[in-house]
This record gives sequence, C-alpha cells and structure tokens, in this order.
Amino acid sequence: MNSPVPGAASAGPIPVAIVGVSGYSGIELARLVSRHGRLRLVQAVSDKWAGRSLADALGLEGPAGAVRCLAQAEVAPAAFADVELVFLCTPAEVSIELAGRALAAGCRVVDLSGGFRLAAEDYPRWYGFVHPAPGLLAEAVYSLPEATRNPAEVRRARLVSNPGCFPTASVLALLPLLEAGVIEPGGLVVDAKTGTTGAGRKASEDFSFSEVDGDFRAYRVLKHQHTPEIERVLATTQALPPGTRLTFTAHLLPTRRGILATAYGRLVRGKGAADAAAAVRAFAENRPFVRAVGAEQVRLHGVVGTNRALVGADADPERGVAIGFAAIDNLVKGAAGQAIQNANLMLGLGETTGLELLSATAP
Amino acid sequence: MNSPVPGAASAGPIPVAIVGVSGYSGIELARLVSRHGRLRLVQAVSDKWAGRSLADALGLEGPAGAVRCLAQAEVAPAAFADVELVFLCTPAEVSIELAGRALAAGCRVVDLSGGFRLAAEDYPRWYGFVHPAPGLLAEAVYSLPEATRNPAEVRRARLVSNPGCFPTASVLALLPLLEAGVIEPGGLVVDAKTGTTGAGRKASEDFSFSEVDGDFRAYRVLKHQHTPEIERVLATTQALPPGTRLTFTAHLLPTRRGILATAYGRLVRGKGAADAAAAVRAFAENRPFVRAVGAEQVRLHGVVGTNRALVGADADPERGVAIGFAAIDNLVKGAAGQAIQNANLMLGLGETTGLELLSATAP
Amino acid sequence: MNSPVPGAASAGPIPVAIVGVSGYSGIELARLVSRHGRLRLVQAVSDKWAGRSLADALGLEGPAGAVRCLAQAEVAPAAFADVELVFLCTPAEVSIELAGRALAAGCRVVDLSGGFRLAAEDYPRWYGFVHPAPGLLAEAVYSLPEATRNPAEVRRARLVSNPGCFPTASVLALLPLLEAGVIEPGGLVVDAKTGTTGAGRKASEDFSFSEVDGDFRAYRVLKHQHTPEIERVLATTQALPPGTRLTFTAHLLPTRRGILATAYGRLVRGKGAADAAAAVRAFAENRPFVRAVGAEQVRLHGVVGTNRALVGADADPERGVAIGFAAIDNLVKGAAGQAIQNANLMLGLGETTGLELLSATAP
Amino acid sequence: MNSPVPGAASAGPIPVAIVGVSGYSGIELARLVSRHGRLRLVQAVSDKWAGRSLADALGLEGPAGAVRCLAQAEVAPAAFADVELVFLCTPAEVSIELAGRALAAGCRVVDLSGGFRLAAEDYPRWYGFVHPAPGLLAEAVYSLPEATRNPAEVRRARLVSNPGCFPTASVLALLPLLEAGVIEPGGLVVDAKTGTTGAGRKASEDFSFSEVDGDFRAYRVLKHQHTPEIERVLATTQALPPGTRLTFTAHLLPTRRGILATAYGRLVRGKGAADAAAAVRAFAENRPFVRAVGAEQVRLHGVVGTNRALVGADADPERGVAIGFAAIDNLVKGAAGQAIQNANLMLGLGETTGLELLSATAP
Repeated sequence: MNSPVPGAASAGPIPVAIVGVSGYSGIELARLVSRHGRLRLVQAVSDKWAGRSLADALGLEGPAGAVRCLAQAEVAPAAFADVELVFLCTPAEVSIELAGRALAAGCRVVDLSGGFRLAAEDYPRWYGFVHPAPGLLAEAVYSLPEATRNPAEVRRARLVSNPGCFPTASVLALLPLLEAGVIEPGGLVVDAKTGTTGAGRKASEDFSFSEVDGDFRAYRVLKHQHTPEIERVLATTQALPPGTRLTFTAHLLPTRRGILATAYGRLVRGKGAADAAAAVRAFAENRPFVRAVGAEQVRLHGVVGTNRALVGADADPERGVAIGFAAIDNLVKGAAGQAIQNANLMLGLGETTGLELLSATAP
Repeated sequence: MNSPVPGAASAGPIPVAIVGVSGYSGIELARLVSRHGRLRLVQAVSDKWAGRSLADALGLEGPAGAVRCLAQAEVAPAAFADVELVFLCTPAEVSIELAGRALAAGCRVVDLSGGFRLAAEDYPRWYGFVHPAPGLLAEAVYSLPEATRNPAEVRRARLVSNPGCFPTASVLALLPLLEAGVIEPGGLVVDAKTGTTGAGRKASEDFSFSEVDGDFRAYRVLKHQHTPEIERVLATTQALPPGTRLTFTAHLLPTRRGILATAYGRLVRGKGAADAAAAVRAFAENRPFVRAVGAEQVRLHGVVGTNRALVGADADPERGVAIGFAAIDNLVKGAAGQAIQNANLMLGLGETTGLELLSATAP
Repeated sequence: MNSPVPGAASAGPIPVAIVGVSGYSGIELARLVSRHGRLRLVQAVSDKWAGRSLADALGLEGPAGAVRCLAQAEVAPAAFADVELVFLCTPAEVSIELAGRALAAGCRVVDLSGGFRLAAEDYPRWYGFVHPAPGLLAEAVYSLPEATRNPAEVRRARLVSNPGCFPTASVLALLPLLEAGVIEPGGLVVDAKTGTTGAGRKASEDFSFSEVDGDFRAYRVLKHQHTPEIERVLATTQALPPGTRLTFTAHLLPTRRGILATAYGRLVRGKGAADAAAAVRAFAENRPFVRAVGAEQVRLHGVVGTNRALVGADADPERGVAIGFAAIDNLVKGAAGQAIQNANLMLGLGETTGLELLSATAP
Repeated sequence: MNSPVPGAASAGPIPVAIVGVSGYSGIELARLVSRHGRLRLVQAVSDKWAGRSLADALGLEGPAGAVRCLAQAEVAPAAFADVELVFLCTPAEVSIELAGRALAAGCRVVDLSGGFRLAAEDYPRWYGFVHPAPGLLAEAVYSLPEATRNPAEVRRARLVSNPGCFPTASVLALLPLLEAGVIEPGGLVVDAKTGTTGAGRKASEDFSFSEVDGDFRAYRVLKHQHTPEIERVLATTQALPPGTRLTFTAHLLPTRRGILATAYGRLVRGKGAADAAAAVRAFAENRPFVRAVGAEQVRLHGVVGTNRALVGADADPERGVAIGFAAIDNLVKGAAGQAIQNANLMLGLGETTGLELLSATAP
C-alpha cells in the first residue's frame, strides 16, 4: 500500500506479510510477528501450506493463527495492496524477483536471502548467477544494525537486505577487537560452527538425523558465499581496509540452533587480555542486543530463543594472538529476529520492540 | 553356485553376496562379513555405489574393500554363479523378485526385508500388495534363532526370512515371561522405541536432524506391519494360542541406533517379581546372544554395536502386571547380525562365528 | 503479607517470591514471571546464587533481573512480608517446612514439589519419609486445572500443590478416554518418556552427557512415586473407582525437555477409533491449554517452550485396545507453567494470563 | 616381571594390566586388549569396580571378562609380578607414582596421562604441579607413531608416554602441510572440537546432558595444557623451529566421541590447493592408520570406533591460507588405540596388530 510518510510509526498495527512462511526462518518470523505488539501479520505465502491457516499448520494462536496461506503463484501485486512491509524468506533468486514486485506495489521490503548482500560482480562466483536486477541491488541497504554507520539510511530504505547468519556472528566476534585496535586487520581467521537449521528445511540424506547425529565436519571449505559478505561488512565499517581478505570456515554441529564463531587475529603489539575484554565490553555498551561475557561463557545455551548475541574475547601476548567469540541463534539474531530489528528501525519503532521478552529456553 | 551338500561347513572361505549394500543394514552386513573369518564377500550390489569399491565407498579395509559394486540392473543369474549365499537388503517387493533369481542360480538366500515374514493373506492389509510369489513364501523359513523350535529346518532351508527389528526385540521381551508362565497370553502390550536408522537411509524432511533432534513421537499407530509378525512368531512358538492378538506401538527416538521394547502382560496369579527375574535368567541360559540383567540395566548403551540382547523383567502383584524389557541394536541383532547368525546356522558354522568379538562401543 | 481478600485481582502488580530459583523449574518460573504482566518477582532464593542478581546469574532482563538472590538460611518470616504468593521449587521435605513458614507470614503458596501430593499414609512407601505436617497436607489443594472438579477450592486455597510432570501428562492421556467411556478403568498402562531436565539440575554420572546421549532405558520400574499420584487424581475425578491401580513406567529420553505419555486401556465394547478421536476433541474444547490432534501429531516439538498439551487417541476394536497420547513440556505445563496457571486461578486472574504468548521453539 | 629381552615378540600371549579400567579410556583399552590376539589382560585396577569381574562390570566376554578388578590400594609391586606391560589410565599425578612402581617391578609401561608429556619446567604452569619424578620424565619416550623420527627408541623404551587426544589430532592436521613446505611455521592456529568423553567419566553439572545437549562453547581458552604438547611434538619433528608458539582452542561438542581439528597456516608463496591435497596424500602413504580424503570428507563418522585418522587439506592463494583437517576417535586413536599401537611397537608386534578389524560404527 502507499505509505506517504515511509516508515512513520503510526499508532495502529502495521500490516505485514511473510513470503516463505513454512521454512525455518519464516516460521520463526511468524512467531515473532504474532507476539510483536505493533506489527500485524495479514498475509503469509507458502506453497507447502497453501490453503491452511497458521493455527493449523504452525499451532499459532491469536489473530496470526487465522491467517490462511497463499500459494506463491497467487501472489499478484494486488495481494500486497494492504501490506506495508513484506518479509521475504525465499531463496535468493526468488527474492530478487519478488522484491521488485513488492516495491512496485508500494510496500517496503526486508529480504532475508542472499539476493542483495554482495556487489553485483561477486554474484557469479559466490552465488552462481548473474544478478538480474542490478538497479535494485544498488538501491538495497544492507543492515547489520550493530555495525551500521548510517542508521538514517535504514530508516529511509525501501529495500533492506538482512545479513546472513554467519556474517552476523563473525562480524560480532571481530568488530569489537578491530574497532578497539586490539588486532591487526590482516590474516583474520573465522572458524564458525552452526546448527542444522542453518541449512533450511528440506529433504536431504546429508542432513538426516542418522547422518548428522554424532558427526561433525566442515563444508563448502574456502567456497562459502558468506566469506565475501563478511569482508564487505567489515570494509564498510572501515574496520578493514578495502580489499582485505580473511579466511572463513563453516562447520555443521549436531544441534538444531545456534552459531558460535571463533575469530583469530594477530594481536597489536602492546595489547593484551585486558584490552580484548575491554573491547567487547565497550562494544556492548550501547547495543541492546549485545552482551559482553567471559570467553568461556559465550555459548549457544545463552542465546538460543533470543535476539541476543553473547560476545567475549581473550588474548595471549606470548603467542601474539587475540580470539573473539560470538554466539547467536541463527534463526533469531541470524535471521528472523534481526529482520524484526530492521523492520523496527525502518518503521521508526523502538529497536527492541517485540524482541525484549524473548529469553533463552535452554536447557 | 550349486552346493550339493547344502550348508556344509567346508574349510575354505564361503563366498557370499550382499544386494543393497549402501543402505544401513547392507553397510553393517558388509562390515560384519569382512570381519567374519569364514565368509568372504565376493559381490556387492548397489545402484548408488555402482562402479565404486567398498574401500572407497565405505572405508572397508582388507579383501572386502576391493569388491566393486554392481548396479542392480547388472545382476543377471550369472552374477550369482560364484556365490553360495546371498543376503538381500532390499525393499520387500525387490527381495521377493531377487530371491527367486538367486535360488534359480543355485544360491541360498537370507532375506532381510519383510517379503517373507507373514502369511500370504496378511500382505494386502499390512504391506499393501498381494504377495506375487506364494510358492516361495511357503518355502521360506522364518528364523528368529532364540525362538525357533526347529533348528534343523533352518539348517536345510534354501531361503531364510530374517526377522524384523521390532519383532526381534518384542519377542525377546515377551517370550521369557510367556514360556515361564509368568504372564497371561491375552491383552499383551508392547511399547517399542527405535533409533532413526530403523527408517533406512533416505532423504526425508521428517527424518532430518532438525525435525528429529529434541523430538519424540509414535508412528504408524495401530497400523505397523510388525504387529502381525510378532503375533505370528509367538503363535509359532506356542507361547500364544493361534489367533491371539496383541497391541504394538512404535516410537521414534532421537538417537541413531537401538531398540528398547517395554512389554506389559497380566501377571498370572501367584507369580511375582522373583518369578519374572527367574524367567529371563532361565531364558538367557542357553542362548549365547541373550543376557539377563535387572530391569533398569536393559539399555541401549549395553547393546549398540553388538549382536547381544539385554533382557530384564519385573512384576507387581498388587497391580497384577509383569513388565519385560529387551534392548537390541536394530542394525545388528535386529538386522545384519541376526542375518549372519542365520547364515551361520544354515551353513553349519558355529552360531556365534564372526559375532563374538563385537563389543558395545558406548559411550 | 496479609491479603484481606485472598486472591483478589488488584490492579497493581502482585509481588511474588521464588524459592529454589536456580533449579530448572525455578529458572523457568523466573522467566515466566518476568514476562507475566501481572506478577512481579520481588524475591528469589537460592543457595547457589546467593548474592547474585538474576540478570547476572540467569541473563534475565527488566526489573526481575535486578532481584538479588538470598541464601535459604536468610529466609526468615520477615523475608516474606512484602510477598503475596510464594512459589516453592524445593525438594519435598524442604517445601513442607517452608510452606508452613510462608503461610505463617500471611503468604499464599504454590508448591512444585511432591510434598503435598499424596495421602499421608502413602508417604513412607513412595517418598521414604513420614509426612511431618499432616495438618498442612490436609489443607493443601491439589490442582491439575484440566482435571479439577472444584475450581472454587483452588480460588480460595492458601496452599496449592502443583502436580508432578508425569501425572500431568498421564492424566491428560487417560482422562479424555475415561470420561467419554471409551476405555475400561481396569488394567490401565502408562508408558511415559521424559527428557533429562525432569531429573533436576545436579552433578551426576548417570545423567552426564556421555552416559545419556545415544541411550534409552527405564528407571524406578514399578517404584515411581508418580504412580500413586496418577491413581489418586483419576480417582478424585471419579474417572477411576477408588482403589483402582494402574501401571506406570518412566523412561529417560536423550533429549532435554518434554514428556510423551502413551496410555493403553481396554476398549469398551462397541467403541472404536472415531470414539477415541472424538473423546480427545471434546476434552480439548473448553480447556485453553489442551489441543487435540491426530495420534501421530502428538510430539515433543509441538509443546516444548509452551504451556500447551497435545493430546490424541486411536483404537483398534480387533485388538480391544485404545491408546491415548499426551505431550507436554515437563518444565512448563509439567512444572513452572502449570504453577503460573494455578497462581492465576488462585489470584482471580485469567487462567491463561502470561502464558498465551509462549510458542513452541522447535526446531 | 623381568623381561630379559625387552619387547621380544614371544609366541605366547603377553600378559598386561590396566590401571584405571573404569574410566572411558580404560574401558576402551579393556575392549581392545580382549580382542587383540597377542595381548592377554591378566589384571585390572579400579576402585570403583573393586571386586567385580569385567564380565559383570563391563559386559566383556571371553577370558578378559573373568578378570576381577583390584582396588588401587591393593596394587603392591607384587601385583605386577606376572605382568609384562602396564597401561596407566590414571590422572597425571597418580600415573607418575605408579609408573615408578611398575618399572621397579620389572614391567614396561604405557602411560595415557599427561604425566610424562612436557619438559619438567612446563609442569607448574600447565599442570599446576612441580613434576615429582624428573628422572623418570627424562627417561620417558613420547610416542605419536605417525610423527616419531626414531622408532627404535620406542622399541627399547621402558616407559612410553602416550600422546594427548588433541595433540594427536592437531599434529595430524598440521604435520603433512609443514613437512611438505605448504605452510609457514609461524602464526599457526588450531581450532579443535571434541566429544564429551574427552572430559572423562565423572559426576559434573557442567557435563550433564541437560547442560551439554544443544550447546557448544570453548573451554580453557589460551590455557589448555595440550598447547605446549603440540608445540613440543612439532618442534621434535623439526616441523617447527624450537620455541615456535602456536594458538590452540578447545571446544566441547554435543556428541560423545571424536575430535575434529581445523588447522590454519599461512600459505607458502607459490603453493596452492593441489599442493595441500598432495601433502596429505603423501603423508598417508606409509602410515597405516592415516587416510587422506577431501577436506569435507574429514568427519567424525568416518573414524569413531576405529584407530584411523582422516586427514584432508585445502588452500586459497588469494587469501594466503591453507587449512588442514584431521578427525580421530578421542578414545581410540586419541587414547586407548594409540596405546595399543605403542605397545605393539614396544613389543615388536606388527604396528596394526589387534587394531585392523575395527571399523567405523556410524551411523
């Protein structure tokens, strides 16, 4: 719908849609929207659940439960007429197409895919396709709120690109140490470990319980599309000189949710463990979703079910190294929760609206 | 190949084939055959692994590792020419067809599917098809060695039907109490729980790690095809009057391997906990793979990786109930190990040959 | 504090205390109270966390996070002066003592232990001690809200005994079928499976990850103290004739949270699967936390993180059996959530206050 | 007993003892010895199992099952009279004391603790005690067979120090790349992840199932005693210049068994992915327990239950990095299996004796 004052925080509920609601990010987003307070879910799209209500398909209570899912083919521009903001939880190529349609219908968009995260020239190598909408890509505003230097841009954006789960964790592990001048920008290594929901909801022998339980391994070694995204975010924040490269490895944990990123950097001469700890404390200070703890307290149990990131750091001058740790829930701070956080910023709501009352459910 | 003296324990290695080697039962069988001592794996069939050696596909060492897999379409009668015994780890309908071909080639067969486990009239209801080879079915000898009353029949059989995993556990939980007259034959209930490998190796959203980890539920409630198999085995052993029905429920555990069956029966008046415990001890006595322990010591960790069954029982006269417990590894005693045990019996080898040195690997 | 109109729903926040806040039930309760809306946590007791704030010890945000824990020895009657309701998350014998103290201080009490759940004469056998406060026990009102026939009693009670986790699940599996006359009251069997948090938070080799992961076994076979509690609740609801005995078995699942109860009863002649399904639907109708689903949809993933129970049932006339299933989160509907539900009823708040927005977090 | 020709491979069974048999390494060792062929377990020591047979306590079959455990206090020198080799599966300080006693009794010793792994001057900092037997420490021969440059020393040694689990995996990840000149020796990082059995068998809230399942975190960050051990082994092999330091981080996986080490090094200019892959292939060539695979095939499922290490490597010249991966079973190649391998070398048996037939049990 046409929103003459983009993002104005009107008093009434703000109508939103979720496309791709039956995937893990979409499910999480539907839950978060249904408890948000200011957003109202008015439309949900899923081929798998077409015709079913969210009460039936997802056990959602309240008004959101009454929303009946549309098939994707039914999503004509008119379908977005009463919607102010659309969340896209779709594969990158689908998102690119739907973002254009939603903008044309006058909606604002938060896209959770990789469709708008890199420069156009990086798509062929890392995503395997030529970006079909470079104009849209140029307009899209990438927003990892804890790393953003220009919040006003997000406030005004029609199309926000929500960060990947690994980049969120990796940047939160590295940025405190880089900004505080504790580590050198060169030769950074991020060793990341994720739960299985990061792979999405699908039938796959590789992700079957029998294959994953009791196992642990790396995947897409030196080829993961989140590598250039991390490099790009850090360059944008001026934490890394443009063109700086780092090493990123993803591993698959035998658990459902959560990412731990362990990041290694060369310690700046004269710095030590106290500087590393002070850096994460300073970083956490004005960021409501970041909590600084000891390096060994950064754990999945402290974040699963919340939009919170735990960060910690330590250093060893004898070995010339500092290590930053960050833990997030890949489906919340790494996807749906961060999308709500971005929607809050776009709509001029308080950044934490609808996200404050989430508390960790572990054990 | 023609084996004029069926099952003669010749001194040399006995050549065997495995069809369906890339499924979980087939993999386990290949491992067991490779360490057996008397059997030699000379042929392996798998569409998925066609053209690959078992060293490459499975990491198998020694001569078995050198076996190169054939695609199923390549298995002409000639393919069985040098094989004395064929293990079929294939779906029921495929097994029925291949069993005929293997017998025609002069091989003996151990079938691990449900293709030869019920009476012909039970197939439409429980397996959803009319049995296409009633003659073969009539010839097949069902062999759960701990419950068999006529071992000579197995010794002579051309075609042995290896029991299902749940029937193996369920019978081992109930038979000691029934044979010792501790419980009544009517109103029996078996509540069984299995690891995920029982569902086979396949791409399936329902069996993905994200869906199974942290979950527990029943499946095929009151429709599981192992129900009539349990009833039939117990009737054959005369533990149950013909036509007696019992209740069986299967549940899916968030673990890979192992079955625990908890079986409830009405306590015969005058019997008590000591009788229940004595019954399982007596049952274990001459059965090398059965070990009697306390009811709370019957656990998956004691059996995973072995061909052993742990059995235990307790009773409460005030409540008029006895409970029998049995634990097995669904892939070993519930499938591949029992198939080796049956092959040993058919071939006149010692029942425990190649199975004695397996020890539990938990934790 | 003295509350002249017991349980009146005053407009302001109602001050409550939690004793035993560092156990799993206490933690869950602190989280629920902090998000409740009408209750305000003003006091928390834990020897382990004495002196620490709940923000520090538990990561709790908002005013509840500012509460600083007292050691148990510091809890003098005066400590309860400003508290209207005390939740006791303490072992049975501690609860019995503290309940008296809290009542003397003018507070109302919800006790989550087994201290007030059975008749006095049952304590020596099932809990191993003679009940030291039979007067209090006589006054205590046991409240499983979905089975309560006299809600006014709960509304007036000074001391409410919150049900055990297994009795909650077991009663929800059986009561629909008993009330609808689908099953006979004799010979009932409940085969229950629980996650590890049911055992509490403690150092124990038996409950270590290395021992539990990959394992499954029964425990306290025919000796579990929840057996007489289930019998008693069902007798109170007149679903079972007084003195009727049933069989209950507890098993330990390799997962953290959730209970599935599978309950077997003899089918009343003439009844069938449709009657069983109708019974659970009817039962769910006016009970906001009960949801009727198909038997195979009763699963832990649908309830973990919520105060909801999923119930389902099926029957097989040929086998003369009906099976009822119920799933709950042992720490929520089986402990802390049900305690909030009971506090809501005592205080005249809506039964679902503070519990509606919990949604399952699986996967 | 006096063994005039140390390590002579006599034809008969070689009598051995295991001290600390009830811990996870001791259990694994007892299983391996019982299936070894040339070793015979004649004595087992455990306070926890004192007086019980290994058949009863561990379910061990055959002659080893008949061994009855002694309490540690009963282990007088005479107790070792009939033993040729003693395996010590005891804490470091206990091992140091018992090693002396066993040598005095004429036995040879393989110690699985950290008691003889570092230089004397490193004990206060990394183990928290002053080494009480520097003479013994000087005599002890550290043996990671795949990295040993002087096998004759092991052949003659009275006291062999078996490597730690993390050093075994870390060295196997780094050494191929270092020896082939693919990476620089400076600035190495090893990010290692282990299953819970690495922490030993004990009652501990931190290692309870409820705390570990669904969690992941680092521990002993920059303080782990395996750090100097890795540095020392690599210096001994001349892969690292003396005094070179590296960074090591241990993480706890929610699984029971297995270690994956991910090791990062700066790529030598001119080298690339093909060189990294060739390095691991060359390294595997004459090492029977090392198998080179692709980087993403290095996984726990391929090694659990075996004495095998899977190794793989990849490199990215654009980022100037090579990554080496190694996976082992922490209880087999990381403890008991390697102890057998070392005993085989000491006793002049084939290196793989008793270890060849272990095959992975996953899934």
